[in-house]
Amino acid sequence: MVRASGHASDQQRRYPQWELSNKELQRLLRDGVGGVILLGGTSTELAHRCQTLRHWAKAPILLCADVEEGVGQRFEGSTWLVPPIALGRLYQQDQNRALSLAERYGRCTGYQAHRCGLNWVLGPVCDVNNNPANPVINVRAWGEDAETVSSLACAFQRGLAKEGVLGCAKHFPGHGNTGVDSHLQLPVLEHNLHQLEELELVPFQAAIKTGIDSVMTAHLLMRNLDASRPATLSRTVLQNLLRNQLKFEGLIVTDALVMQAITQTYGAGEAAVMAFDAGADLLLMPEDADRAIEALCEALQSGQIPMQRLEASRERRLKALRKVDDCNAEFLLNSSKSNNNPLERDEDLALAKELVSASLETLYPGPILATDSGINLLRVDGVLPCSMLTATAPALVLPSEAGFQSVIYHNLGISPWRDDPEEPLALQLLGSGPILLQLFLRGNPFRGDQDRHEPWAAAIKQLQRQKRLAALVVYGSPYLWDELTQILDIGIPAVYSPGQMAEAQSQALACILQPAKLPSNAQPALIQEFTD
Amino acid sequence: MVRASGHASDQQRRYPQWELSNKELQRLLRDGVGGVILLGGTSTELAHRCQTLRHWAKAPILLCADVEEGVGQRFEGSTWLVPPIALGRLYQQDQNRALSLAERYGRCTGYQAHRCGLNWVLGPVCDVNNNPANPVINVRAWGEDAETVSSLACAFQRGLAKEGVLGCAKHFPGHGNTGVDSHLQLPVLEHNLHQLEELELVPFQAAIKTGIDSVMTAHLLMRNLDASRPATLSRTVLQNLLRNQLKFEGLIVTDALVMQAITQTYGAGEAAVMAFDAGADLLLMPEDADRAIEALCEALQSGQIPMQRLEASRERRLKALRKVDDCNAEFLLNSSKSNNNPLERDEDLALAKELVSASLETLYPGPILATDSGINLLRVDGVLPCSMLTATAPALVLPSEAGFQSVIYHNLGISPWRDDPEEPLALQLLGSGPILLQLFLRGNPFRGDQDRHEPWAAAIKQLQRQKRLAALVVYGSPYLWDELTQILDIGIPAVYSPGQMAEAQSQALACILQPAKLPSNAQPALIQEFTD
Repeated sequence: MVRASGHASDQQRRYPQWELSNKELQRLLRDGVGGVILLGGTSTELAHRCQTLRHWAKAPILLCADVEEGVGQRFEGSTWLVPPIALGRLYQQDQNRALSLAERYGRCTGYQAHRCGLNWVLGPVCDVNNNPANPVINVRAWGEDAETVSSLACAFQRGLAKEGVLGCAKHFPGHGNTGVDSHLQLPVLEHNLHQLEELELVPFQAAIKTGIDSVMTAHLLMRNLDASRPATLSRTVLQNLLRNQLKFEGLIVTDALVMQAITQTYGAGEAAVMAFDAGADLLLMPEDADRAIEALCEALQSGQIPMQRLEASRERRLKALRKVDDCNAEFLLNSSKSNNNPLERDEDLALAKELVSASLETLYPGPILATDSGINLLRVDGVLPCSMLTATAPALVLPSEAGFQSVIYHNLGISPWRDDPEEPLALQLLGSGPILLQLFLRGNPFRGDQDRHEPWAAAIKQLQRQKRLAALVVYGSPYLWDELTQILDIGIPAVYSPGQMAEAQSQALACILQPAKLPSNAQPALIQEFTD
Repeated sequence: MVRASGHASDQQRRYPQWELSNKELQRLLRDGVGGVILLGGTSTELAHRCQTLRHWAKAPILLCADVEEGVGQRFEGSTWLVPPIALGRLYQQDQNRALSLAERYGRCTGYQAHRCGLNWVLGPVCDVNNNPANPVINVRAWGEDAETVSSLACAFQRGLAKEGVLGCAKHFPGHGNTGVDSHLQLPVLEHNLHQLEELELVPFQAAIKTGIDSVMTAHLLMRNLDASRPATLSRTVLQNLLRNQLKFEGLIVTDALVMQAITQTYGAGEAAVMAFDAGADLLLMPEDADRAIEALCEALQSGQIPMQRLEASRERRLKALRKVDDCNAEFLLNSSKSNNNPLERDEDLALAKELVSASLETLYPGPILATDSGINLLRVDGVLPCSMLTATAPALVLPSEAGFQSVIYHNLGISPWRDDPEEPLALQLLGSGPILLQLFLRGNPFRGDQDRHEPWAAAIKQLQRQKRLAALVVYGSPYLWDELTQILDIGIPAVYSPGQMAEAQSQALACILQPAKLPSNAQPALIQEFTD
């Protein structure tokens, strides 16, 4: 499985070091590479792209994407849903509603994936996020205990299956209790098999029972199962545990082999052979596809890996492909001649709204007073591009209408912090007036601990002492929200949404801002494009 | 002419207050609205969109966009070229090369527009930018004198015509000498006719002689021609000057009627009737399409405007439509089954590169030393989204490889300025070490004077006094570059590119940074997306 951008042209690739060129893709698909993982581009572009890749491959191929939060998480023009952890929290109060929403979540994702030409969704995450400091799973998990994750992940999978796309339980044998980002280094876990059986394996067993099509391996070292090899490369974990003990007969796919947890120790060919030999059927994003193929061919020719292993993997792949329609994207591509919203149906939009409202949490809600000199301080955990913060994003426009001037702080911006643990915010940099604090922080991978270690609790205390905290909104991490609400003064309006999208912004801000009406011909506060 | 986003779905609209919903578009096109101006979306989406709009209209329609700098300026996936002012500067040294490049510029733009389904490019700008403080024309002009603008604008127009799309000379009778942004208020000019004939009208006359298909009016008050009405609404300017005196027989289109220069004084219906009565054939982006249509119908039925005027405009529109192929986007849409780069040909990429290299200017070029503690300070004039500054943009990655840590400053970020005219930069906010200063400032409309009034000259003096200026790069405004090079210390490497795109960043930084080679498995400095 190689990686391609969802865009048509090589020039549009955002990560050319990982996204193969069209020439390379054409060659590898022609030669029989079994599938492509896609990232980047709009839904319309993706539909085209899938058609092109299918055309190049001649035979059926697997086309997948990491659309754990709906296709709109990765491909603009589709629906982006609140992260799974939202339903995990809801499940504690209302199991039936959470289960029903999780299945609709799966249907929405499956429907749109299928319409865009994908046949394989790399979800549900089956990790139990029982470590709030987990830098890589976090809000992507369906919950913090085995039962919640099992129930919701299976409901999501049922939704996917009804739409005719494959699902993937990940990251085996469980990535929820790691404090290290495997994109950056190899996490080591001290669990023994008994502990795993009590917790981490439970959702995978449930997913297998529900008929999950594939399982993705984790790059982590379970020292008590295999002292030397990470799960992805371990026969003990893949063959003995997953195939023999859990009786999984579907596709085993590695997590991306290009991740540093693997590449910092194993060469491209070596990792491919080890993973395949350990029991993987599909190798995702090998560091070098040609070297991986060569090394595999040598291992097969020399008898190091028996040919039957290859045949068994091929058969599992063909069986998976036979399960899905030959879902090409004709529907979407032809829709330009017919309907309005080719991809997002009314029911998808309704689901997105309902998920936001069902997962919104408030403390002391109620309107803060309009002002003409407030500061709307936004902390965003991505700005290049910051997809949820367009020029007309509610998080900017609504506070602006209420008199709060926006100041955006991001990892590459000038820092508002100073070296004083009691008064960590350099308030003179922000201007005077009440501060509406909006934190878009969800613990994304790849950031190291940069975001997490910012002293927001101390900053909130500082603002409260100075009577300058107008309101707090947290978009993303439930752990940050739980931490900050502990220290909030009584009466300070505060809202939490697990989602960061425009709908989450609108609903969250509706809880704390007076609805304002602009004069009919007024311009919104932030204008960047117009006709010239 | 109404405005639509280039995206398929209503949810993707960035400016829903201006971009009609699909339902409104369907109704208005079915009822005979004559065309659409498009903004936003990728090239693939645009191709779909044009097909959809044509389908809704039943009869041929005009489909246009403000793609003055190539289709890639507005629609990702096509080629974005350096702004026209680059060729204006080159023309002073090498007329033939500049003319040849301008014609290729027109061909590239016309070819790609046509392939995306557009049949009308809203260019060339025929304004003579003889006021460096012009907030709305600036780098969009082909030059600063009438002869340069005439020659290059006509070369561009010849290129367009060869590709079978319509062009548009704008903004009549000349918007180059205004110090006010007509998006925000109505500029007033004291020119008399004689002065206009000597300068502003020259490029329009040349364009008319070259067979330009349409002319766009300017929202500015030429007090000596018409004391009360802006050019867009003035019969003296449109009928007497453009039609009678300059003998223009093509389409007259207003600039966007939704601009505040018009709306702050005239109602939606009133402005439409006045513009049409003054001589316009097409009304671009009326503040309210339904009210504009109603008011026009009333004026025609009451005899206020004779029916022959309507017939003449309809005839001119049909004549223009007959000139262009019925260029639907089939080519691009079908290309998913064939080639690699459906839109950008090798010659387009080569042109984009050549335009960057032909317009690069340097002062004391030569590599600055690598450091492990430098600051890469970037000033960008847009960040939501900041299309030229993706996570893997050369302006971020190349300095990072040379040891310069990026700090991005934008209009909504924490300001690096302090209230000290001699030492305006608050250097303690940026950290220590040498500073590589990259200014992405081109004088975009809609910003008011915010960007322009920043004391970059004083900041550079401050950095030089403290021996902390490693190098300067200006992307965009030639006026800023000319100002800053005056005060640059001897030996400080400095580069200017009129363009801001990745290619401009690569070429500019190649003049001042040592080429660095990353270890083979190292990550680039800024990673935001990956497989999960």
